[in-house]
Amino acid sequence: MKIMVMEEIMSCNEELAEANRADFAAGRITVVNVMASPGAGKTSLIMELLGRLSGELPFSVIEGDIASAIDAEKIEAMGIPVIQINTGGGCHLDANMIKEAVTELHPKDDSILFIENVGNLICPSTFDLGETIRLVIASVPEGHDKPYKYISMFEAADVIILSKTDLLPYVRFDKENFVKGIRALNQKAPLFEVSCTTGEGLEKVAEWLKEIARVNKLKVRR
Amino acid sequence: MKIMVMEEIMSCNEELAEANRADFAAGRITVVNVMASPGAGKTSLIMELLGRLSGELPFSVIEGDIASAIDAEKIEAMGIPVIQINTGGGCHLDANMIKEAVTELHPKDDSILFIENVGNLICPSTFDLGETIRLVIASVPEGHDKPYKYISMFEAADVIILSKTDLLPYVRFDKENFVKGIRALNQKAPLFEVSCTTGEGLEKVAEWLKEIARVNKLKVRR
Repeated sequence: MKIMVMEEIMSCNEELAEANRADFAAGRITVVNVMASPGAGKTSLIMELLGRLSGELPFSVIEGDIASAIDAEKIEAMGIPVIQINTGGGCHLDANMIKEAVTELHPKDDSILFIENVGNLICPSTFDLGETIRLVIASVPEGHDKPYKYISMFEAADVIILSKTDLLPYVRFDKENFVKGIRALNQKAPLFEVSCTTGEGLEKVAEWLKEIARVNKLKVRR
Repeated sequence: MKIMVMEEIMSCNEELAEANRADFAAGRITVVNVMASPGAGKTSLIMELLGRLSGELPFSVIEGDIASAIDAEKIEAMGIPVIQINTGGGCHLDANMIKEAVTELHPKDDSILFIENVGNLICPSTFDLGETIRLVIASVPEGHDKPYKYISMFEAADVIILSKTDLLPYVRFDKENFVKGIRALNQKAPLFEVSCTTGEGLEKVAEWLKEIARVNKLKVRR
């Protein structure tokens, strides 16, 4: 498994993201940019979806972290092609990092590429990577007020996952208030509730992702 | 309660932080910069410490968030002077924001000022606010691997709080591994374990803070 240490390029992220998008379209690759706070369950969700779908579809993964290869090692142990990006101190991935990682990773045509962004509910939301889908996770123990505070992340999401629902009995979490906050910002994104501990809700997300990949392939073929 | 909407000043943060530090020293004010991921329990910890100590010592609070005044409203309901800073999209507080907020807030001489930074385990660590103490919270549900990934935050901490210990029975959290990660980066910072749900460990943090404020007053008097 390769670890790439990369620094941010400050300019022209939008152009590089569009170039990535064109490359992904050419290979009919569905790219999921997974964003959340530290410890919200990004790696766990990706691993659960890989476990459910990697027999049916080809996958690869780009892991983004400031330091360490902890997450990439977990993915590699599943036999999935993976590259770890270490940003040094950088608080988000950018389109150039993805371009360089993809050049090394060579994701297969008609595959799904997960990009696990740096754990941060703010900065990654403003950096287009050329992804197909922006997946945002909010975990139950973070509290129901997150959509009221971290607006741009939830506003820009294509799908929102409420994770760690197995902890609902043990914390103060007002689900109605959470959903109200989400829907004030974003009426379109489907909202799934999951627990990677009990398995609750994961099958629905896997089915949704399969359908997204199917539609994306048809769309980019046009 | 005042809400201030502020944008970041990119340059001269260090100089402004030193000016803040001198102002705080002149008033013998102990300033605690509270940093953590979204939903790690920053506001809860501050409220618990206020509840335990505000009869003995004067306090004030600066709340930092991208949007909303949810946290400041909670503090105000306790009768504590508070100002809410909204950063727009900004991912951290800076020294200039603190300077302006302090001008409005007028913290009392010999008091303790809590600054709740924006929920982010990355960016706030590189912006000195002129604080006395950098308090970093990591919550149990975020997982034990956080010190291995978010190095600069834990490296620079003067005190580290492991929060939400009441959730230990319900999640996979290897405390030995967590402590090992912390101590590889930071040998000096005391490490407290707390639960704001059960009250566990909070008295010890309150006692520690009182002692810090006492020593700080003596030090800045010299």
